Amino acid sequence: MKTLIDHALVITMDDGKIFEDGCVIIEGSKILYVGEKTESVPFDRHIDARGGIVMPGLVNTHTHSPMTLLRGVGNDRALNEWLCDYIFPLEDKLDDEAVYYGTLLGCAEMIKSGTTAFADMYFFSESSAKAVLSAGMKANISRCVTGTHNDYKKRLSEARQLFADYDGAGDGLIKIEHSAHAVYTCSREAIRAVAEAAQLDGTGIHIHLSETMKENRDCYGQYGKSPTEVMRDLGVFDTRTIAAHCVYLSENDMDILKSYGVGVAHNPTSNLKLASGVANIKELLDKEINVSLGTDGAASNNTLDMFAEMKLAGLLHKGMRLDPKLIPAEAALYMATVNGAKTLGRQHECGKLKAGFCADLIILDADAPALVPVNDPVAGVVYSGCGGHVVTSMINGQIVMENRELKTLDIEKIKQGVLQAKKRMGL
Amino acid sequence: MKTLIDHALVITMDDGKIFEDGCVIIEGSKILYVGEKTESVPFDRHIDARGGIVMPGLVNTHTHSPMTLLRGVGNDRALNEWLCDYIFPLEDKLDDEAVYYGTLLGCAEMIKSGTTAFADMYFFSESSAKAVLSAGMKANISRCVTGTHNDYKKRLSEARQLFADYDGAGDGLIKIEHSAHAVYTCSREAIRAVAEAAQLDGTGIHIHLSETMKENRDCYGQYGKSPTEVMRDLGVFDTRTIAAHCVYLSENDMDILKSYGVGVAHNPTSNLKLASGVANIKELLDKEINVSLGTDGAASNNTLDMFAEMKLAGLLHKGMRLDPKLIPAEAALYMATVNGAKTLGRQHECGKLKAGFCADLIILDADAPALVPVNDPVAGVVYSGCGGHVVTSMINGQIVMENRELKTLDIEKIKQGVLQAKKRMGL
Repeated sequence: MKTLIDHALVITMDDGKIFEDGCVIIEGSKILYVGEKTESVPFDRHIDARGGIVMPGLVNTHTHSPMTLLRGVGNDRALNEWLCDYIFPLEDKLDDEAVYYGTLLGCAEMIKSGTTAFADMYFFSESSAKAVLSAGMKANISRCVTGTHNDYKKRLSEARQLFADYDGAGDGLIKIEHSAHAVYTCSREAIRAVAEAAQLDGTGIHIHLSETMKENRDCYGQYGKSPTEVMRDLGVFDTRTIAAHCVYLSENDMDILKSYGVGVAHNPTSNLKLASGVANIKELLDKEINVSLGTDGAASNNTLDMFAEMKLAGLLHKGMRLDPKLIPAEAALYMATVNGAKTLGRQHECGKLKAGFCADLIILDADAPALVPVNDPVAGVVYSGCGGHVVTSMINGQIVMENRELKTLDIEKIKQGVLQAKKRMGL
Repeated sequence: MKTLIDHALVITMDDGKIFEDGCVIIEGSKILYVGEKTESVPFDRHIDARGGIVMPGLVNTHTHSPMTLLRGVGNDRALNEWLCDYIFPLEDKLDDEAVYYGTLLGCAEMIKSGTTAFADMYFFSESSAKAVLSAGMKANISRCVTGTHNDYKKRLSEARQLFADYDGAGDGLIKIEHSAHAVYTCSREAIRAVAEAAQLDGTGIHIHLSETMKENRDCYGQYGKSPTEVMRDLGVFDTRTIAAHCVYLSENDMDILKSYGVGVAHNPTSNLKLASGVANIKELLDKEINVSLGTDGAASNNTLDMFAEMKLAGLLHKGMRLDPKLIPAEAALYMATVNGAKTLGRQHECGKLKAGFCADLIILDADAPALVPVNDPVAGVVYSGCGGHVVTSMINGQIVMENRELKTLDIEKIKQGVLQAKKRMGL
C-alpha cells in the first residue's frame, strides 16, 4: 500500500533538507520518497497536510512510562525524599495490570504529543511490552535491575526472559535491553551481572548516571571513584549504553563517555523539578558526545511531552550561561530526533525522513496560531511547537493518530484501567 | 441568561477551595455561584465539562501581541543585537493593518492556550484595541512611548488619544494604560511626561525594568543609579505599575518596588531565550511583592502560552537553586491567575472563580492523557497542563472558544491578513 502526504512544509533532519511545498511517499512501513511535490504517482491513501509541518516523530530516550499512574504524587520534593517516601512505597503495590494500563496511558500521551519511539526502564515489563505492541509504538524496553548481594538475581532473570520473549517483537517495534538502575541502588555484583547479560544477549544497557550531587558524593565515599568510573570498570560501557541525566560529570567522566560512545539522555525538566541541577550539555556537545532528550517518568516532569523537553533544552542553557547562541534551535531538534534514534541504536531506522527509513513521522496543525507565521521552520517547531499541535502520527507506516484521534488506543478504556489500578494501590 | 457548567473539577483560586464534582453558574457576564453540584437550578445553557477541569482564565501581564508577526525572526541572539538588527528595522515597516492582524493572531493564540486577559505594550495601538474588542478578550493596552528630547511627544499624544477613545470600551474589556518603554530607550523627560500623563488620566503604567545586565550597567553609567531608582525618581511608581522582567534588582530596588506596590511581570522563557538571565523570584515573593507572569512577545518566546510560562516558573528556580520547595505549584498558579489580575488592577474582577466576579474561565480536556490521573489538582494544571489542553474559554460570560473552536475569530482570515502584512514588510 502506498500513502502520499503532501502540501506540507517537510523538515527532514536529513542533511538539513527542508521542503517548502514538500511531500512524503510511504510504501508499507518504509519511506519511499521525500522531496518537493513530484509528478503524480499512484497511491492508495492520500493525506493532505494542508500547509502543516511534517517532521520525524520525536524520540524520548529516558522514561518510565507506567509512572503515569503516579503523576502528581509527592511534588516539590528532592529526588531522595520523593523516591523513598512517596514513589517506592506506591511502586510496591503495583501489579501486572497496573503497569499494563500505566504504559498504555504513557503511550497515549506520547502519541498525542508527537513521540514515536522511546526507551522505557521499569518492571512488570512484559506488561509494558504488550501495551507498546497494542499501541503500535517503538520502544527499547528494559526490566530495571536493582539490589545487592543475591536479591538482584530474580530481577535479572526476568530481564533475560523478557529478552527471549519480546526482543524484535512487532516487526522490530520492540527492542529489549538490560538495565542497572544506578550506582546507589545496585551492588557492584548486580551491575556486573547486568553488563554480562547485555554482552550475552547482545543488547544495550540503560542506566541512571550522576543524577544528583548526593549520588556522586556517596559513590566517591563508597568506591573512591565517580559513578561513570564505577560503571566503566564493571563493563557497562562495553555495550551501547543510554546514560540518563549526567548532571554531575567531571571532565574525565565526559572523556570516558566519549571514548565508549555512551549516549547521554538529557532530562532538563525532571532535573529542574527534583532540584537535581542542570547538566553541562554544551560541554558534552563540544566533545561530540551523542546527547538526546528524555522526559523521565510522568511523576517527575509531570508529562511525557517531548516538544516541551526540546524547547526547554533549547532555552535553559542560554539563560544559565548568559549566551543566546548556546544550544541553537537546530541542536535541540537534533537531540530530539537524530541523536535520539542513535541513542536507541535505531539510527538507520528513524529520527529522519529519508527514503529507506521507517515511516515514523508526525504532522503538525497548520491552523495552530502558535505556528503562524513560520518565519523559520526549525525555530518554529523548537520554540513555538508544543505537543498539542500534533494532529497525525505514523509509526512503521501505521497511522496511530489521525486528526487528533487515537487509532490504536481507547482512552476511555485506559482511564477505567488506570482508575482500577489506583484503587488497588490505595491511591 | 444563565449558564450551568457542571461535572467538573473546579479549581477556584478563592482561598484554595477546590470542588471535586463542582459546578459554576453564570448569569450574564458574572459568576453567580461556584461550589459542589447544587440542586437543579433553571438555566438557559448547559456545558457538561465531563470530568474536565474548570479554572480561572490565565492572565498574561507582559506581552506585545502584534509581534506574532515576527515570530521566529532572529533567533538565538542577545536582546540588544536581536532588537537593533532584526526587530526594530522590521517594526519600522509595520502599519495599522499589520498590527490589527498581528493582534488578532495573538488573541487567537492566547484564547487557544487558556489566557483570558493580558497587558499589551506596543504601537498602532488603536488597531490592537479594535482587534481585542473583536476577539472579546480583556486587555490593558498601552501605546509604548520611546524617545529623547521632543520626539516622544507625538507618541505620548497618541497614547493620550487612545485613552480618550478606548478606556473602558467593550464594557470594561479594554483598559488603557500609559507606557514608557525602558530607561535605555527613553529620555528622563519622556519618562517623566509619561508618569504625568498617567496621573492626569488616572491610568497604570507599563514598563520594562532591569531586563539585562547591560541595561543596569549603562543606567549606572548615565545616571549613577539603578533603573528602579530612575523610574521612582521620575514619578513612575506613583501610579499602579507593571514592571516587566526585573532580572537584575538590588535588595534596595526590591524594597522600592515593595514600598510602592509595583507589580513584577516575570517572563522566564523570554529571559532564557534572550540570555538575559533568571530573575530572583524567590526573594521577591519573600518580600511579598506581587509577582505575576508574562510571555513577552512571540518573537522572543516564541509563543504566548501561559501554561508553559507557569510550568517554567514553577521549575526553573528549583533547579537553579537546588531547592525542590522553591516556587511550589500553588505559587506558580497564583502568579498566573490571582497575582496577574492584581498586576492589571483587575483583582476585584478576575483571577479567581467567585460569586460576583466576571465569568473569565477555561475548561481543560478531561481526555487529555497528560491530565490522567489527576492525583493533585494544582500540581496537575501547573506541571502537567499545557495550552493544548484548553477546550473551552469564557470571557465576561461570552464563550470565545468551545470544544477547541474559536467563536469570535476566523483563523483563515487572520492567516490571510498576516500573510499580506508580511508581504508589505518584505518578510
